[in-house]
Amino acid sequence: MTSFLVLNGPNLNLLGTREPDVYGATTLSDVEAGLHALARSLDVTVECAQSNSEGTLVDQIQSARGTHAGIILNAGAYTHTSIALRDAISGVALPTVEVHVSNVYSREPFRHKSMIAGVCIGVIAGFGTHGYDMALRALITHVQKEAVP
Amino acid sequence: MTSFLVLNGPNLNLLGTREPDVYGATTLSDVEAGLHALARSLDVTVECAQSNSEGTLVDQIQSARGTHAGIILNAGAYTHTSIALRDAISGVALPTVEVHVSNVYSREPFRHKSMIAGVCIGVIAGFGTHGYDMALRALITHVQKEAVP
Amino acid sequence: MTSFLVLNGPNLNLLGTREPDVYGATTLSDVEAGLHALARSLDVTVECAQSNSEGTLVDQIQSARGTHAGIILNAGAYTHTSIALRDAISGVALPTVEVHVSNVYSREPFRHKSMIAGVCIGVIAGFGTHGYDMALRALITHVQKEAVP
Amino acid sequence: MTSFLVLNGPNLNLLGTREPDVYGATTLSDVEAGLHALARSLDVTVECAQSNSEGTLVDQIQSARGTHAGIILNAGAYTHTSIALRDAISGVALPTVEVHVSNVYSREPFRHKSMIAGVCIGVIAGFGTHGYDMALRALITHVQKEAVP
Amino acid sequence: MTSFLVLNGPNLNLLGTREPDVYGATTLSDVEAGLHALARSLDVTVECAQSNSEGTLVDQIQSARGTHAGIILNAGAYTHTSIALRDAISGVALPTVEVHVSNVYSREPFRHKSMIAGVCIGVIAGFGTHGYDMALRALITHVQKEAVP
Amino acid sequence: MTSFLVLNGPNLNLLGTREPDVYGATTLSDVEAGLHALARSLDVTVECAQSNSEGTLVDQIQSARGTHAGIILNAGAYTHTSIALRDAISGVALPTVEVHVSNVYSREPFRHKSMIAGVCIGVIAGFGTHGYDMALRALITHVQKEAVP
Amino acid sequence: MTSFLVLNGPNLNLLGTREPDVYGATTLSDVEAGLHALARSLDVTVECAQSNSEGTLVDQIQSARGTHAGIILNAGAYTHTSIALRDAISGVALPTVEVHVSNVYSREPFRHKSMIAGVCIGVIAGFGTHGYDMALRALITHVQKEAVP
Amino acid sequence: MTSFLVLNGPNLNLLGTREPDVYGATTLSDVEAGLHALARSLDVTVECAQSNSEGTLVDQIQSARGTHAGIILNAGAYTHTSIALRDAISGVALPTVEVHVSNVYSREPFRHKSMIAGVCIGVIAGFGTHGYDMALRALITHVQKEAVP
Amino acid sequence: MTSFLVLNGPNLNLLGTREPDVYGATTLSDVEAGLHALARSLDVTVECAQSNSEGTLVDQIQSARGTHAGIILNAGAYTHTSIALRDAISGVALPTVEVHVSNVYSREPFRHKSMIAGVCIGVIAGFGTHGYDMALRALITHVQKEAVP
Amino acid sequence: MTSFLVLNGPNLNLLGTREPDVYGATTLSDVEAGLHALARSLDVTVECAQSNSEGTLVDQIQSARGTHAGIILNAGAYTHTSIALRDAISGVALPTVEVHVSNVYSREPFRHKSMIAGVCIGVIAGFGTHGYDMALRALITHVQKEAVP
Amino acid sequence: MTSFLVLNGPNLNLLGTREPDVYGATTLSDVEAGLHALARSLDVTVECAQSNSEGTLVDQIQSARGTHAGIILNAGAYTHTSIALRDAISGVALPTVEVHVSNVYSREPFRHKSMIAGVCIGVIAGFGTHGYDMALRALITHVQKEAVP
Amino acid sequence: MTSFLVLNGPNLNLLGTREPDVYGATTLSDVEAGLHALARSLDVTVECAQSNSEGTLVDQIQSARGTHAGIILNAGAYTHTSIALRDAISGVALPTVEVHVSNVYSREPFRHKSMIAGVCIGVIAGFGTHGYDMALRALITHVQKEAVP
Repeated sequence: MTSFLVLNGPNLNLLGTREPDVYGATTLSDVEAGLHALARSLDVTVECAQSNSEGTLVDQIQSARGTHAGIILNAGAYTHTSIALRDAISGVALPTVEVHVSNVYSREPFRHKSMIAGVCIGVIAGFGTHGYDMALRALITHVQKEAVP
Repeated sequence: MTSFLVLNGPNLNLLGTREPDVYGATTLSDVEAGLHALARSLDVTVECAQSNSEGTLVDQIQSARGTHAGIILNAGAYTHTSIALRDAISGVALPTVEVHVSNVYSREPFRHKSMIAGVCIGVIAGFGTHGYDMALRALITHVQKEAVP
Repeated sequence: MTSFLVLNGPNLNLLGTREPDVYGATTLSDVEAGLHALARSLDVTVECAQSNSEGTLVDQIQSARGTHAGIILNAGAYTHTSIALRDAISGVALPTVEVHVSNVYSREPFRHKSMIAGVCIGVIAGFGTHGYDMALRALITHVQKEAVP
Repeated sequence: MTSFLVLNGPNLNLLGTREPDVYGATTLSDVEAGLHALARSLDVTVECAQSNSEGTLVDQIQSARGTHAGIILNAGAYTHTSIALRDAISGVALPTVEVHVSNVYSREPFRHKSMIAGVCIGVIAGFGTHGYDMALRALITHVQKEAVP
Repeated sequence: MTSFLVLNGPNLNLLGTREPDVYGATTLSDVEAGLHALARSLDVTVECAQSNSEGTLVDQIQSARGTHAGIILNAGAYTHTSIALRDAISGVALPTVEVHVSNVYSREPFRHKSMIAGVCIGVIAGFGTHGYDMALRALITHVQKEAVP
Repeated sequence: MTSFLVLNGPNLNLLGTREPDVYGATTLSDVEAGLHALARSLDVTVECAQSNSEGTLVDQIQSARGTHAGIILNAGAYTHTSIALRDAISGVALPTVEVHVSNVYSREPFRHKSMIAGVCIGVIAGFGTHGYDMALRALITHVQKEAVP
Repeated sequence: MTSFLVLNGPNLNLLGTREPDVYGATTLSDVEAGLHALARSLDVTVECAQSNSEGTLVDQIQSARGTHAGIILNAGAYTHTSIALRDAISGVALPTVEVHVSNVYSREPFRHKSMIAGVCIGVIAGFGTHGYDMALRALITHVQKEAVP
Repeated sequence: MTSFLVLNGPNLNLLGTREPDVYGATTLSDVEAGLHALARSLDVTVECAQSNSEGTLVDQIQSARGTHAGIILNAGAYTHTSIALRDAISGVALPTVEVHVSNVYSREPFRHKSMIAGVCIGVIAGFGTHGYDMALRALITHVQKEAVP
Repeated sequence: MTSFLVLNGPNLNLLGTREPDVYGATTLSDVEAGLHALARSLDVTVECAQSNSEGTLVDQIQSARGTHAGIILNAGAYTHTSIALRDAISGVALPTVEVHVSNVYSREPFRHKSMIAGVCIGVIAGFGTHGYDMALRALITHVQKEAVP
Repeated sequence: MTSFLVLNGPNLNLLGTREPDVYGATTLSDVEAGLHALARSLDVTVECAQSNSEGTLVDQIQSARGTHAGIILNAGAYTHTSIALRDAISGVALPTVEVHVSNVYSREPFRHKSMIAGVCIGVIAGFGTHGYDMALRALITHVQKEAVP
Repeated sequence: MTSFLVLNGPNLNLLGTREPDVYGATTLSDVEAGLHALARSLDVTVECAQSNSEGTLVDQIQSARGTHAGIILNAGAYTHTSIALRDAISGVALPTVEVHVSNVYSREPFRHKSMIAGVCIGVIAGFGTHGYDMALRALITHVQKEAVP
Repeated sequence: MTSFLVLNGPNLNLLGTREPDVYGATTLSDVEAGLHALARSLDVTVECAQSNSEGTLVDQIQSARGTHAGIILNAGAYTHTSIALRDAISGVALPTVEVHVSNVYSREPFRHKSMIAGVCIGVIAGFGTHGYDMALRALITHVQKEAVP
């Protein structure tokens, strides 16, 4: 069965508990449970991971090669500064979808720039935790299209 | 039945006919037909419009008030420069989703900045014409959530 | 009788109906009615027009030559980006007053810059819709002063 | 009787005597005499002051609290650099109108930016010394509107 | 017979009537008459159009596909800001020559940058209305060279 | 007894051993011993931690919630670039004091900007290792003031 | 007895009376009384002065030489622009502590930069009027350390 | 017979031999031969020179005074940086046409700026070596127009 | 006898006493005494003044009109920021020489820019206090040349 | 025997497996084996380490003190952003050579800037994995030269 | 007898013949003759040279070592861009005075910056060709002062 | 026998004689003698040249085509500004190694940028004159690798 990696970056383990006006009340566990359920219904599997460490996120992206067919990545604060994550995504050459829970474009200017988006297939931002579901569906669609010559 | 406006900006009438390596081979008619079908299946309606003129796009956003429950907007080249579109979206206060067919973040730097994203509920970029379907589903989800106190 | 053109740009047709905390509750019709009344009391006439289209605004400025003795221009969002409006004002060489309903200098930084102010005789900003009356009086004063050798 | 402070900054004591092509031939005394006359006709009083010193202008704004109902401020060169004047206006919380005799937007780029405008109610620029009269009328209108609940 | 589109942007309808020290005394009708004559002498035809509206210019470029073998474009003020015109030229993939009547590089800095030049085959600036003749000859030369394998 | 977290970032474990002309000769152990003593004398406790890893620092800030009443943070080099630390501080919503041993404002320009200061209650910089004592006293004062309605 | 100069810049005479949400309710007299009391308890004396004028602040810093052992300086708005204050501090070569009542780093960007901090021994910002006490204690500590060879 | 100087800058001696995809296969000798032929047919003469040295190019421009009626200048890489060439053109006050073989505006950003264009009568870029012919014709037209009062 | 004003700005009263490695050991009194002697030997007079206040310097420049034939101005730190001094010099229209004791161009970048130089006749920097003598001689030469038709 | 630390940063464990057109086909194991062999032939030893984590790299640099005589550092993506690595190198005061496999100067602009180079003894970039050998030889030469008084 | 090199850069051989409103009517020969006469009267000698080539100017500065006691350098356009001239001056370590005939600070912004001033002893600008005399006198004064221990 | 060109730019003829703390005491003759010896031992030849003139350096690079198999280039100050050298390297399409004696990245910011590095195969900086030897060995390695299919 096709598998996807869902990777969350720094402070996203606080989802649903910090700044609910910005990020909503759904916890990361809720999100991951929802994704597992959605994956089952779509005949794929997802593996979920979170880390506050840029290096660990790079490790996890690297280890996806050979195991997963694509990556859903919410790199949190590292989105805006990490060339290492960008290089990891280029390096594993797996289709990656960048997700943000909040609309980063209506927040501080330093959140408007992504170092990662340029090597992802696309970006989904502002739809709350529902964005992860959108990303999974879009990633499956993308992988299926690629699979057809 | 809830209705949504799907608004396409400059040069998107060329979809499927210009630069297929960037934009794919699906035409704007195909996209609009697909959206009508999807809308029917989801018990909503969509109205589709396209214009190469910034002023006409402003007119169309303004006239959505009272008629539509939300807007799907691919403002094309005006995305990156138009304060008038930003003001129109703020003015009508309708939930708006910004869509881009290509991954604008992997193209020229002047396409990385959006004057509009900050007043939209979210952004979907890079998923080809499939992004319009994603936007419609996301907008319906958003409107339903807002409707529940 | 001396005549003046009062020209309003994008989204100003929403005056009084959108974002009342920023723009107040007076509608554009109210403003125009007030200007006609004021003009009568001052023995001049005004012609009022509004458009959301940059090109149409350029057309209207061009057609003022030979008909009007001056222009009151609230170019809205185009104020901050339009070289075409600047060129039109230079081209017709009519005294033009730039008006803004809100204090643009206490809003987003991209509203602090005017492409047009440098070719106008002056700027009036922040006095609500009362600014149009101020502009008409100031323009009449200006034209009378010019008329006296 | 309601009173207003008319405050002029550096080099405005040279009005009418320096660079007449930029600033006209009316002297500051003429301006102040005209404002006193206009004030009388409108049943208010004005107090006029001028200083070349940023610190003295801050002192004068501070001392307006409790005495005047608003301030007409032509801060001259300090307009473009003075955070202290900005803080003084915020500190006394009196409605302030920024006036410039010349159209600062058609002069050197460093005159296009105002550190003060963001905390004023509005800006009047380019109408020569007539701008002070416009400011007084606008300030009275503003104060009267505020006074009506 | 090979045909070319000659497209003029905002305020170029004022040619010969506005700011003659910058733009000369030849009118747009004169220019177009001259181009028709030159075209006849060179065994090609030209179609001439002018608009003050960015959207209409985009429409006209789009409609050139299938009708014209190339475009001579003086986009006026839109030269410096319009991504939409750039996209239209890329979209129709017709050889386009950018023309300016005045030497834009000796005018205000905001006229030194072109959003369009990068997708044109070349630029001709500063030779007055004679530049249109130069452009037509150069475009014919270019098209003939392309036609030869 | 009220407890505070004292968190030191990258290379601060070298305190007293590297570049003594910049950072002095007191070691981090000395600093921590001094803080424990000071805490005892003030009837509070402190927990001290140091890490060279941005991710570990984020972990430690997150785990302070529910355990500590505030944080003293010398984020070292991460001060100037880390949005993740900023988000962690916002996320746990604990009063945080930013400390720097050296006067960062008299060093390289890239040390003049803090990504963190804006979400801290205050900054203490330049007082050597004594700054930690100042921070502890100031944090206690702050917490006591908050506790009084 | 060792003496220190406590110098407050523009608008700090309004402390406790203007914008209490930013600056608190303690007046400058309260602050100065508190500093005199604290000084007595620490066997030093303080002299307090305030001016809205940059030039007067320069005068006061210069006259501190030979009289005071150090300076506590809250330069208010001049902090961000005054090279003259910077030169005065360098000129008298007295240890100076920069104090800010509010956390300037969480306010407008133009308050994030200090022209003075680079020639001070350190900065204390964000601790309300308590920052002055912190500064006095830190300055005494600094002077005593310098005095010991 | 009227004479013109054709001056080529650094690396243009490699024309036709280096990077043919950018510059084409015509050599500089071919270009110069073509220009001599064209000149003869138009009853003028041209003198051709090339140098890789900025100083020599300045010398050659200076020596054109009194000998030539105008200059065709392809300053190559010096176009983008040389104030000395700009000053030389201003100094000799001869009408000068700036030519570029490639479309510099579709290449690296540092080639988009010309230090020279502002003191030339016009610019021709992107038409390959044919641009030199265009320049000669345009320069003759310009000189003849100037000669007629 | 022709008279000149020698005006020194902030911190120049410390000349010879502060930072002797930057400014040398000559005091301002020495400089002024030397200028009086030189003036006598050249049959002119000088009046010398110094102030730490920008406003006072503006006052002194203004009062030079009608009394002095030119100004020697070392505006110290205000050189780099003061538009008010620039306006005062323009306002009195007296030939002014800008002097700096140190070579400001080999110091911090913020000392490389002068707001004043553009309205002076010239600048002398880096020759120590000898620069004042050079300025006086140059000013006399300038005034004499102007006096000859 | 003298020992050196060879430290590789994020994604360099993918060497030889990712983007071979950029980085070549040699793996990191190959590189390290080659370095050990070279070291033996030169009578020194090397210790090799790699990490994707900035914090771990800082740890490893710190622990080199007392063990190694110098460091060969390819910090990968962290090269361009890490002040922490810069501080670690300064802190241990060991001679460090910055190595890059690819020519970073012919890639994206964000790879042209190094936060680390300024505290290294030198930089070697663009020579593929051969650059590590060059670095080892150069470091030995440097250490020997330093050792000779 | 002490000797000085007077070195003039690009286009200064046109002095007195080009743009007399900017540079005056005195030729370079006049200037050099005047300097020889002045030198004689001051018991020194000068050698004068001019070149339009940056490289030749570097050669001449280098060859001054051992022959001349100082350099008077008007580097013309190279002033604003030449690091090579800066390095040459540093390399020969001779006291150098930067001279400009016109007031470069009242001309185009690109003439306000000097790459050379930071390694010269001082700058003289705006005094016409008289500035060379000033420079010679100042250089002699400087050399004599240096000579006295 | 394979031959290489070693080209040194402005002021490098002063090597060993100027600023020895920056550049060391080895002269350029020493360097060239060492390179000839090293070349002999490696069975290749080198030709060495130096010029202070940008144009001459361009000439020398051009003439390397057909004679040399690669270039070692220390362009000195021209490194940071010369597009002409960049174009020459691209034009001759010979593998080129950029060398700097000092670590340019720890010097002034204007030395951190290279206009040339992007078209070289690699950069060696900071290893003193030993860097030339490193470059020769690396260039030979590069050429041999290219020669093997």
